[in-house]
Amino acid sequence: MRASVIYGAGDVRVEDLPAPTIQEPTDAVVRVTLACVCGSDLHPYHSMPASEQGVPMGHEAIGVVEEIGDDVTGVSVGDHVVVPFAYADNTCSVCRDGFQTACSHGGFFSGAQAEKLRVPQASGTLVQIPDDVDEALLPSLLTLSDVYLTGYHAAFMAKVQPGQTVTVIGDGAVGLSAVLAAKQMGAEKIILMGRHKDRTDLGREWGATDVVAERGEEGIAQVMELTGGEGSHVVLEAVGHMPAYEQSYGVVRPGGVISRVGVPQYEEAPVGFMSLFGKNVTLNGGPAPVRAYLEAAIPQVLDGTIEPGKVFDAEVSLDDVAEGYRLMDSREKIKVLVRP
Amino acid sequence: MRASVIYGAGDVRVEDLPAPTIQEPTDAVVRVTLACVCGSDLHPYHSMPASEQGVPMGHEAIGVVEEIGDDVTGVSVGDHVVVPFAYADNTCSVCRDGFQTACSHGGFFSGAQAEKLRVPQASGTLVQIPDDVDEALLPSLLTLSDVYLTGYHAAFMAKVQPGQTVTVIGDGAVGLSAVLAAKQMGAEKIILMGRHKDRTDLGREWGATDVVAERGEEGIAQVMELTGGEGSHVVLEAVGHMPAYEQSYGVVRPGGVISRVGVPQYEEAPVGFMSLFGKNVTLNGGPAPVRAYLEAAIPQVLDGTIEPGKVFDAEVSLDDVAEGYRLMDSREKIKVLVRP
Repeated sequence: MRASVIYGAGDVRVEDLPAPTIQEPTDAVVRVTLACVCGSDLHPYHSMPASEQGVPMGHEAIGVVEEIGDDVTGVSVGDHVVVPFAYADNTCSVCRDGFQTACSHGGFFSGAQAEKLRVPQASGTLVQIPDDVDEALLPSLLTLSDVYLTGYHAAFMAKVQPGQTVTVIGDGAVGLSAVLAAKQMGAEKIILMGRHKDRTDLGREWGATDVVAERGEEGIAQVMELTGGEGSHVVLEAVGHMPAYEQSYGVVRPGGVISRVGVPQYEEAPVGFMSLFGKNVTLNGGPAPVRAYLEAAIPQVLDGTIEPGKVFDAEVSLDDVAEGYRLMDSREKIKVLVRP
Repeated sequence: MRASVIYGAGDVRVEDLPAPTIQEPTDAVVRVTLACVCGSDLHPYHSMPASEQGVPMGHEAIGVVEEIGDDVTGVSVGDHVVVPFAYADNTCSVCRDGFQTACSHGGFFSGAQAEKLRVPQASGTLVQIPDDVDEALLPSLLTLSDVYLTGYHAAFMAKVQPGQTVTVIGDGAVGLSAVLAAKQMGAEKIILMGRHKDRTDLGREWGATDVVAERGEEGIAQVMELTGGEGSHVVLEAVGHMPAYEQSYGVVRPGGVISRVGVPQYEEAPVGFMSLFGKNVTLNGGPAPVRAYLEAAIPQVLDGTIEPGKVFDAEVSLDDVAEGYRLMDSREKIKVLVRP
């Protein structure tokens, strides 16, 4: 089968790989109908050392179940499904708490930018969608595999309340999704920190009341002014780099929450009296347990309450996946669909 | 008046200072009836460079209002009061959110180990207690000035739920108070990490179900074993040093909370994928807004629901305050009352 494989920074190829098969009785094989490129795919695209050993790419997909192992229950061959970017048994106590990305029987996918994908722990992982969904809704359903529900996770962990001020740092697809989720939860003022007009325009459409293009001290000063000097009840950090973290504690209000879903490209960061502690700031977030949110989100897409698929502003065939990476890396496009 | 003044590490003296007077119309002067030595007083006692300029010490007190400024309302001369360790207007939006330690008109006291104390923002800060309280309850009421409600703040911010497992790091007076607060909130298993038997015995009396004397990797391994390998829903960190922080993220369960009330003696700390982010851990806490909790806590002391004054296992006169510091610094005593 055809599959996207990265061999180093800037070097994404499409190759013929053996089609996946059932390896454990809890596995399923899914034929991918739609996949996409994630902002986090750009990290190896920037910095992976050149290697003879390629790494299959992609972790967001919707598709059709083609084969299931003997122990798989709850999903059947032929089912249309959303594939969450992390697999999990969805029965252990950590999963029951709603943190499926930390399931001890779970893990993270790679290899969804392909014709087929092996899904471990299929019973706990896959969630069915109707067979006869309007084609126009498929991109939005695909966002429930990762990007929209990652933005949602940020807002969920921050417990956004009606009437609050929420600052979203980052105008990538996750940041925009965080705007949409914060609006759904009733945020009154949503300040989007971003500098790409095509992106911040979608942010405004989804509920951003203010856009701050400046970064660093100047950006912090603008948010403080927009909040009457008090700062933001909630900061949703959708970048993962240290300057975004520094902006976060610069704009958060005393007693407020910084919720991170940008994968941190740092391990150590300020947390002491001068950053978090003195203001009683809460820091949380992490890899989104999208499985926990899927049952509630699918109907919202199907009934048109939300249309998170608007983050996709380009589509490539699987054979052209390298162009998809280039379009996102150059910021020419927000997020790129990949059709196998 | 007599007052405790520190001139450098290990050098606490009692001196005659001018009695405080009303400086702002929002001030009150309180005659101190009971004060004490705080674990945080030991930081300068360890490390303050010798200085010709002394610093008045102490920030925990109960007393009687002796004088009030023209703008003070709600408290009168002669009222018996608890003095929270931070003053605040208690009317601004940050105070109304319950974060009085970050009030923009607020600040932190020093000089409570003395015969008298000037209290800024007296209307928002002081909370009355009955005039005729049983003498035996006074130490417990004094703990509402800081130590008990600091332990309570840790548990409050962590939103301890009935049935949860809570690990408390540190067997000082704040850690023990955190045990008591967690028990009040219904924690089922309370693991106290501490190595001083007199202290952990009080912890057991207050609700600790397990005591772990080991630190570092060995201590983490023991907590993991006690929690069936899953870790602790909540960690209350009452030390403030980096090894305690490292233990915290070592023992916290995925999706759990680390709530800190030990004043961090570090600014940077691990928060990335390998520490907090990967496990979706929440980090919070800060200086306790005891003012927010006083109205509810005073009746609990008066009716005997809690007896947090048990942390006091020694008493000195103000003239002997240096001995009080020595007793706490040497770990001979948990917490020392100072009677002016």
